[in-house]
Amino acid sequence: MAVATNSIIVDWGTTSLRAALVGENGEELDHLETENGISSLRQGEHEAALMTALAPWFSRYGALPVAALGMITSRNGWIEVPYVPCPAGPTELAYGTARRSLPNGSDLVFLPGINDTARQPFPDVMRGEETQIVGHGLSKDATLIIPGTHSKWARVKEGRIDGFQTFVTGEIFNLLINHSFIARGSTQPPVDDPEAYRWGLHEAKHSATMLSLLFSARTGGLAGRLSSEQLRSYVRGLVIGQEFRQAHEAGWYAEGDEATIVGNDGLNDLYLVAANLFGLKTSIAGDDALSKGALAVLRQCLS
Amino acid sequence: MAVATNSIIVDWGTTSLRAALVGENGEELDHLETENGISSLRQGEHEAALMTALAPWFSRYGALPVAALGMITSRNGWIEVPYVPCPAGPTELAYGTARRSLPNGSDLVFLPGINDTARQPFPDVMRGEETQIVGHGLSKDATLIIPGTHSKWARVKEGRIDGFQTFVTGEIFNLLINHSFIARGSTQPPVDDPEAYRWGLHEAKHSATMLSLLFSARTGGLAGRLSSEQLRSYVRGLVIGQEFRQAHEAGWYAEGDEATIVGNDGLNDLYLVAANLFGLKTSIAGDDALSKGALAVLRQCLS
Repeated sequence: MAVATNSIIVDWGTTSLRAALVGENGEELDHLETENGISSLRQGEHEAALMTALAPWFSRYGALPVAALGMITSRNGWIEVPYVPCPAGPTELAYGTARRSLPNGSDLVFLPGINDTARQPFPDVMRGEETQIVGHGLSKDATLIIPGTHSKWARVKEGRIDGFQTFVTGEIFNLLINHSFIARGSTQPPVDDPEAYRWGLHEAKHSATMLSLLFSARTGGLAGRLSSEQLRSYVRGLVIGQEFRQAHEAGWYAEGDEATIVGNDGLNDLYLVAANLFGLKTSIAGDDALSKGALAVLRQCLS
Repeated sequence: MAVATNSIIVDWGTTSLRAALVGENGEELDHLETENGISSLRQGEHEAALMTALAPWFSRYGALPVAALGMITSRNGWIEVPYVPCPAGPTELAYGTARRSLPNGSDLVFLPGINDTARQPFPDVMRGEETQIVGHGLSKDATLIIPGTHSKWARVKEGRIDGFQTFVTGEIFNLLINHSFIARGSTQPPVDDPEAYRWGLHEAKHSATMLSLLFSARTGGLAGRLSSEQLRSYVRGLVIGQEFRQAHEAGWYAEGDEATIVGNDGLNDLYLVAANLFGLKTSIAGDDALSKGALAVLRQCLS
């Protein structure tokens, strides 16, 4: 079929469905969000939920190609789309999609995630970030950082995603802040303190003992040197700093290297501060990478 | 006053009050436990709670010397007893105690915790473990491991506790198992799997990237190589293994060194397995160290 002028990109996760109506060049024309995440749906309910969510756009434009990605393609989603192994670019991703037709004749394309089978002890996985990387562009070899609950460091080489590694930084931060001994000592509502964040990064840079370093969130208070207002940002610096230290140890960069932050999780500026402190020359990519990448794979599928 | 034949040791923590009636040589004659932890008491209620808890023994034996330790001597406890700095032995600990008389004439001695002001970025602290170490004995220079929610590695030198370092290993394990992405994948009720535990230790031994390693708890399931029954013990191996790896990096031991595990938190056997895998020659101390240590300091106070 001919590629329609407009397309729909659906980022369908555990707790929400976020959709964008995009034009020919990936520019966002409209967007919507519902709380119909996959955790609220049972098998057999996904198609109806999607048709309801997208009804305003289907009414206006008729059938449109739809790309769906995120946890919707996981084991607990609508259909499980197998991971495509690295190295992978748009061609490999398009080959790994799953397709079906919606009741109004729209093509629905499920985008796959990718895995890196070279990682130990098990292949590493991503589901969504690969599409951001494609949208960012693969024309230049590069090191990319995608901050998040489960941050990813990835290498682009010869037009494809060559490999990547996950760090559960955001997860550990949330656990510490919400459920640990640190939770009881932190100010409510939370305060962001850039200086305390940099302090935490600095401590993390010089510590090989993360399990011990985290206790400084308590001892700093006992010593009267870390206030409850500083605690949250200090701890965030500790864990993000450990991510950068450990990524360095794992060979992701040497001091003076360049890297690009590709993310839409609200953490880009924090990661930029960290990268500078660790001697990485870093820039932040545009925040429309997901739509652009999904469109690139969708086009390759439907052309 | 003359030291009575029997004494009472009160380990008074956040959620419980545990007391032991001990004889002349520290042998336990009786014990009791109440749920009157410090979190359930307001200022002014502690003395009455203690008198009620110990009433059976006071009725029978009259006034008895009482040693109290644990969170009861912290900022949120009955009275805050300042930390005694390392190096510290029974003499320094006795000097750092706080004393008062109970309504029936019993001497009540609050035992201090200790701190290690050489630790960066803030002095490290312990409150209770120092008493276990004294009870284990200080006559021989040694490296001691006290497993727990906040594990301690400590050095005994020339009859005193020379220094120590905290690792929040148990805290991280509990957070991961109860609140993280790992919690959703684990079998209920929990299963202990010695082989999966050793597997986790082994992976931890060879990984400098803890934040990445923890994600293997998910990727192992996705790869079909780690079952939900194995998950809990595997993750425990990962975090305890990281404690041993990081303690090694921090200079606490070299392969072939000797260490002693002094603990009463139900983790001693797991730590022994870990120590063997990391090349430490390790033995487990008796489990009556806390009472013996408290009695030693109490005697030094009241003599």
